[in-house]
Amino acid sequence: MTKKIKKLSFIDPSGANLKEVKIFIDKVINELLNKASNAEKFPPLPKKNINLDKFNFNDLPISESEIFKKIKMIINNSMNASNPFYLGHMDSLPSTMSIVGDIICSTINNNMLSKETAPILTEIEKKVTTNLANKFNLGQNSGGVMLSGGSLSNIQAIAIARNRILNTSENGLIGLKRKPYIFSSKESHTSIQKAAMVLGLGTNSVISVETDKNGTMIASDLEKKIKKKIKNNGLPFCIVATAGTTITGSIDNLNDISRISNKYKLWMHTDAVYGGALIFSSKYKNKLNGIEHSDSISFNPQKWLYITKTCSILLLKNKKHLYSDFYTPLPYVRKNRNEYHLGEITLQGTRYPDVLKLWLSLQHIGNFSYSEIIENSIKFTNLFKKHLLTIRNIKISCDPQTNIICFRYYAKQNSDKININLQNFLFEKYNIFFSLVKFQECKWLRAVLLNPFFNTKHIKKICSAINEFTKENKNQKLKKSNV
Amino acid sequence: MTKKIKKLSFIDPSGANLKEVKIFIDKVINELLNKASNAEKFPPLPKKNINLDKFNFNDLPISESEIFKKIKMIINNSMNASNPFYLGHMDSLPSTMSIVGDIICSTINNNMLSKETAPILTEIEKKVTTNLANKFNLGQNSGGVMLSGGSLSNIQAIAIARNRILNTSENGLIGLKRKPYIFSSKESHTSIQKAAMVLGLGTNSVISVETDKNGTMIASDLEKKIKKKIKNNGLPFCIVATAGTTITGSIDNLNDISRISNKYKLWMHTDAVYGGALIFSSKYKNKLNGIEHSDSISFNPQKWLYITKTCSILLLKNKKHLYSDFYTPLPYVRKNRNEYHLGEITLQGTRYPDVLKLWLSLQHIGNFSYSEIIENSIKFTNLFKKHLLTIRNIKISCDPQTNIICFRYYAKQNSDKININLQNFLFEKYNIFFSLVKFQECKWLRAVLLNPFFNTKHIKKICSAINEFTKENKNQKLKKSNV
Repeated sequence: MTKKIKKLSFIDPSGANLKEVKIFIDKVINELLNKASNAEKFPPLPKKNINLDKFNFNDLPISESEIFKKIKMIINNSMNASNPFYLGHMDSLPSTMSIVGDIICSTINNNMLSKETAPILTEIEKKVTTNLANKFNLGQNSGGVMLSGGSLSNIQAIAIARNRILNTSENGLIGLKRKPYIFSSKESHTSIQKAAMVLGLGTNSVISVETDKNGTMIASDLEKKIKKKIKNNGLPFCIVATAGTTITGSIDNLNDISRISNKYKLWMHTDAVYGGALIFSSKYKNKLNGIEHSDSISFNPQKWLYITKTCSILLLKNKKHLYSDFYTPLPYVRKNRNEYHLGEITLQGTRYPDVLKLWLSLQHIGNFSYSEIIENSIKFTNLFKKHLLTIRNIKISCDPQTNIICFRYYAKQNSDKININLQNFLFEKYNIFFSLVKFQECKWLRAVLLNPFFNTKHIKKICSAINEFTKENKNQKLKKSNV
Repeated sequence: MTKKIKKLSFIDPSGANLKEVKIFIDKVINELLNKASNAEKFPPLPKKNINLDKFNFNDLPISESEIFKKIKMIINNSMNASNPFYLGHMDSLPSTMSIVGDIICSTINNNMLSKETAPILTEIEKKVTTNLANKFNLGQNSGGVMLSGGSLSNIQAIAIARNRILNTSENGLIGLKRKPYIFSSKESHTSIQKAAMVLGLGTNSVISVETDKNGTMIASDLEKKIKKKIKNNGLPFCIVATAGTTITGSIDNLNDISRISNKYKLWMHTDAVYGGALIFSSKYKNKLNGIEHSDSISFNPQKWLYITKTCSILLLKNKKHLYSDFYTPLPYVRKNRNEYHLGEITLQGTRYPDVLKLWLSLQHIGNFSYSEIIENSIKFTNLFKKHLLTIRNIKISCDPQTNIICFRYYAKQNSDKININLQNFLFEKYNIFFSLVKFQECKWLRAVLLNPFFNTKHIKKICSAINEFTKENKNQKLKKSNV
């Protein structure tokens, strides 16, 4: 190592800078933990824009104390999901062990491409995915792989379905006589459209199935639309069921969908990216009844299992389909015959070991406690609903099926605008952050009750703030009508 | 938070467990830093298999001290890329600031889906990708996005090319009259085949172009093959050039390829996943001459810029193509008109903020030091080559163009088997790890000289070990012929 390179650029493998590196890392961790331990004192999102002039590259190295100033600025201007009033998105407070897992993975910098580049972590991934597939009752041939996020899991699942049913691995889609179709509910996640676009099927190969007032797929409309496509010489090959929609957390009737997928011999993929966590709750896992019939399932521990991002799993009823229908050989890593590298059977090649933080958290928290955490968040969602419905002019979109609830201020005119104002009011005045979503042609405030420290105290504060807004709004209307 | 949940499961946002969390994290960091600071005392890869019985899920939570035991086991059974004798793959010693960046990202757990879920980090990503596009001289309309690994960057690049040239975003590939083709050298990375499979083109849409003895694409063969496909009613649409092949680190002649892509109006994608780092070396950036003509470039700071995995960038000459040819709307996050969320224009939705560790490292190390680190690793590669060639019966595959060199023991018979033995001998006896690769029908030991602490001392030890093997091998042959 040449002397001109800064002393702390790397951890010297002969120990020359151990002390200094440790002091700097300690300083950063103190800053981080102090912020996370005082999360409620800081807003859920930063309130001003930052001057980014100092963000350009620099030719000369900068000192550790300068770097530390920038780190503080970043910590203070980031989303603060540790604050229980951060209710906006499916972004959770991370489990302690997933932070620990990330620190380990970063420092050892292994590569989930192959067993050679991540010996023990590769074995752990196999164990964890097989255990999870069993938890979902996918049967004795099941297994899976991990991917960097739910969109990738959905893309790989539909790619496998496409390759398997339409035989497109080598020859592609050119020359197919009938146009292939995917069916998913109109409330399904946009990554299904993305998958269709990426996979060369085109976005218009996704047929949108109607939903009922609860946001779940109407099975009769699904069957009607499949029949119609078949009649018109189309080639339906895949149904995507959703267990936990993005807007309302609704769960499709998986048994109904499975009957239809069997009848027409279609691949059943369940996007359980959000709701899959219910499998850990002894009380509520029946909400996922029928999921065991899926040919594939996407599930993201990065949401309701509180694992740091990213952490997503693609499970297959028959894990052999990873090899038979999604295989690209890697000729530069040694392996035994009949073994496969994980980089050969995933959309990615090099991967971060997302499995470690998941495995450590599962071990540390344990199934029973996960069950309790999930059940608690449903309990508070129902309590929040009860309180919301006592407020004049507040309506909810539908009964919550998980821990997500959408509500809005109801007025005969300008309702959408008033709800935008409500979102701003709660955030600006009370540091309470809900997201704003569209459901059945209206704008709603959406609450995702993930934070395990969310409790009755928070519900009361939120409801009193909403109450204040509704009164102000009423007064404003009165004033206006007086003019 | 219910009392039954383990005290350290999460960092309590009201500070209740700050002290205990800090103690545990400190203990883990001490363990990690001590290992990294003594990297040469541990083998580059673990030497025995682990009993995995304890890896299953458990219903009851386990204690922090039990967790710590498992963490130690994991650290001790992982790939040890910090050891300068780890020369096997493109896996580098991580920069200190990328470890720091990961600790920050993990703890704040932001989400690069949108500005709402990662306010400041989204701005930093825009800055960094634009700065990098400028460094590659891609022109004033250039920009990019980050993805979890080079395979994803290659897939998204070719998807954009396909959508743009073949107009497949909405309608897909069905009904195309001519079969589309991608051209890449036979030494190009297997993710190009994977991309073709994923994108619905099929693996046989990738036409393999011959390479010369140095592993670089033969331009005349490229043009010949394009012409032939056009003649047979095929539809060439994309050339993938490689800047830093996986096996020998070879760089295609990018100016030649750009001329051909212009002539036939094909998209030019440069897979500079490995070699792209040369743009940081003032001495060697001319090796990438012509890269500025690329329509898209994949570049992985996770390799030769020493950023922890994963960290990959897709750069585009015209960044508008991200919106016009790879757009999937996200209806559940607020934005201003004419703005795009990063989750709408990347293969992934939710993403980890890979940008932070890159930005911090670029700031901390600075362009000048990066230049020096890269130049040093090339210097030692050439020195290693010189020493290797003094050893009887050792041949190299070709002159190294970057910091990768392949060598083998040359014998008239059983050469491949002898080289497998040589790899094992060096690893088992001397803790020196080279990968074993296939190049021009033979097996070679490949050295990737990434570690900035690799120096003359290591070269001497390696060469003396190889010398020992060649002598033993000679003796064995003599013994055998005596039998």
